[in-house]
Amino acid sequence: MSASLPPPDMGLLPEGLSDRLPPQAEASARLVRHVLDSVASFGYARVMPPMAEFEDSLLARLQSASAQDLMRATDPASGRMLALRPDITAQVSRIAATRLGKAARPLRLSYAGQVLKLRADQLRPEREETQLGAELIGTDSDAAATEIVGVAIAALKAAGVTGITIDFTLPGLVDTLATGPMPLSPDLIEPVRARLDAKDAGGLVALGPQAAAYMPLIEAAGPFHPAMERLEAIDAATGGVLTGRIAALRAIAKPIGWDITLTLDPTERHGFEYQSWFGFSIFAEGFVGELGRGGGYAIEHKDGHSEPAIGFSLYPDPLIDAGFGAEEAQSVFLPLGHNESRAAALRAEGWRTVTALSDADDGRALGCTHWLDAAETIAY
Amino acid sequence: MSASLPPPDMGLLPEGLSDRLPPQAEASARLVRHVLDSVASFGYARVMPPMAEFEDSLLARLQSASAQDLMRATDPASGRMLALRPDITAQVSRIAATRLGKAARPLRLSYAGQVLKLRADQLRPEREETQLGAELIGTDSDAAATEIVGVAIAALKAAGVTGITIDFTLPGLVDTLATGPMPLSPDLIEPVRARLDAKDAGGLVALGPQAAAYMPLIEAAGPFHPAMERLEAIDAATGGVLTGRIAALRAIAKPIGWDITLTLDPTERHGFEYQSWFGFSIFAEGFVGELGRGGGYAIEHKDGHSEPAIGFSLYPDPLIDAGFGAEEAQSVFLPLGHNESRAAALRAEGWRTVTALSDADDGRALGCTHWLDAAETIAY
Repeated sequence: MSASLPPPDMGLLPEGLSDRLPPQAEASARLVRHVLDSVASFGYARVMPPMAEFEDSLLARLQSASAQDLMRATDPASGRMLALRPDITAQVSRIAATRLGKAARPLRLSYAGQVLKLRADQLRPEREETQLGAELIGTDSDAAATEIVGVAIAALKAAGVTGITIDFTLPGLVDTLATGPMPLSPDLIEPVRARLDAKDAGGLVALGPQAAAYMPLIEAAGPFHPAMERLEAIDAATGGVLTGRIAALRAIAKPIGWDITLTLDPTERHGFEYQSWFGFSIFAEGFVGELGRGGGYAIEHKDGHSEPAIGFSLYPDPLIDAGFGAEEAQSVFLPLGHNESRAAALRAEGWRTVTALSDADDGRALGCTHWLDAAETIAY
Repeated sequence: MSASLPPPDMGLLPEGLSDRLPPQAEASARLVRHVLDSVASFGYARVMPPMAEFEDSLLARLQSASAQDLMRATDPASGRMLALRPDITAQVSRIAATRLGKAARPLRLSYAGQVLKLRADQLRPEREETQLGAELIGTDSDAAATEIVGVAIAALKAAGVTGITIDFTLPGLVDTLATGPMPLSPDLIEPVRARLDAKDAGGLVALGPQAAAYMPLIEAAGPFHPAMERLEAIDAATGGVLTGRIAALRAIAKPIGWDITLTLDPTERHGFEYQSWFGFSIFAEGFVGELGRGGGYAIEHKDGHSEPAIGFSLYPDPLIDAGFGAEEAQSVFLPLGHNESRAAALRAEGWRTVTALSDADDGRALGCTHWLDAAETIAY
């Protein structure tokens, strides 16, 4: 509660920061709730890290953020720099490595919250986003990857998302091939990755014969089954270094229902440098850009050991912006002098009640679908 | 998902910022959920303002925060100063005055989220808090006050809070008396308020005869009914200027059940300068300090008009810190080779499942209460 004085520019919000109003705000909360409930049903326990941390500690666990992208301020208590979190997974890694360092593995954790950057990404002007997800810590085995993809799909379905596409990727693929059957000089590795990301066959050829050998990988992208056959052909031609990964991808895909579209883009990095063998991106029909992503990574512990982990994050704001999940609740107007115990009973049944505070209150203008007459609810 | 490098001081968090781990994180989410569901059942629609706004716009609607208490940064997009919100009600006021300025009144809005300050309050070291509440905009009538106190109590009960005390206050009382039957010279008003806040009878006397006349107000604090009788005696002795407010307090108190302890502290300001006639603070047995507060206030519109409003905010973190609401869910371990459709059925029934990913996984160590043998769940 606080009194208000007229602000200099009432209602103007900074670029990339916005209000959610009814009914989208409720749709957003409902979606987060359904996703978290679904994730919890697979044994993932909620953690809530703080909105801000020491900048150096946060940056050390963030790979794709730089200090100038963060909202920062000097901490009057310590003199050190604080930063708002631009990502929650780095905080979950910290928790797994420290306070939950001795908890039994595999450790299953979930989270949801706001993340904030001072500078937006190129693709989306939003500087604040909702991020939620699940992390499976202690293993990034085939079984772990199968579980995490299944948990992500179940969560999206629980939230009512349809037309889901999951795009698999093998982040270590170029390294595996470059140090094995398809040698690349070290200075070529990054240019080859970049041309593969861009599906730029001409660019690969222009890099010379070593790079040109990677052209078949461009063809091994697309709908899952034909792309896998092309990847198997590459594997057969290169001495079977990919056989294990191909088997893992098939194992992950096996339990996924036909209502999900699977694609393979073996060299795609989605702008992220996964350290592990497997990654995936999540798309939904009608939405440009990914709704989420996941994959394996490593968590560094204080004693220097590194622990495998795998997880996924969802960024559901585009769904909400598009009106996803907004539903008008049935609500009943309670005129002056209504029966309060009947009103309480209606609320207990799941109705929303809107109580008249004066003769002037108009239930229909207030969005009510029904009104209470004596003991019955009557539709407007 | 992001790879991790060893940070310089792993796990150390800034003072007043902390992680919530299982099961407290889930208890916190559950409490927020129950409060918001209860508030929604009374017709309050959710809004979600952003974590950060322009500092000047935010400060203009905040009465008890100063710029140096906020976490601020220069906005690279506008060159202006951004600030993290230290309070959500100021944002709800902005929404009510701007984007929802033309929505039908009374307008009922609810909210929940994190608030963050760079400097903690004296009483609590926490710099980040969960704030949630409801605002009724367009009226601060007796009926509105009765509703908002009722909604606050119902929300606390829905969250399982017991031993609730509501402390009523009349923020405008000293002004009413000072400009009427108990005159105070203007320079005495603030000292008298401060002595009344401190229940400092000697201090009142020391301020002279005008101030000493306010001593009976110290006696009119305490358990509701005797305190009201003393306030009525003051009213009778001062020509009835308080009769309307006394009637309003009795109307607000009337529907409140005997399980709630009511107190009156007519001159208490709880550190806040309410602009309106009525305020209240919420306490619960076993917790030092208030869990929430509410009252009337004014919302300033762009055209210069001022709109009455009344609402309440809860700060439930102390409840969670004390272990409130933490419950261990029943969870069932699914050994390797389990029946997956049985597992899905268990999840649909509300069980949490923890799937073995390898022979090494130990359901009991992972916190499971049961395990799945063939088709049955068996308690450990």
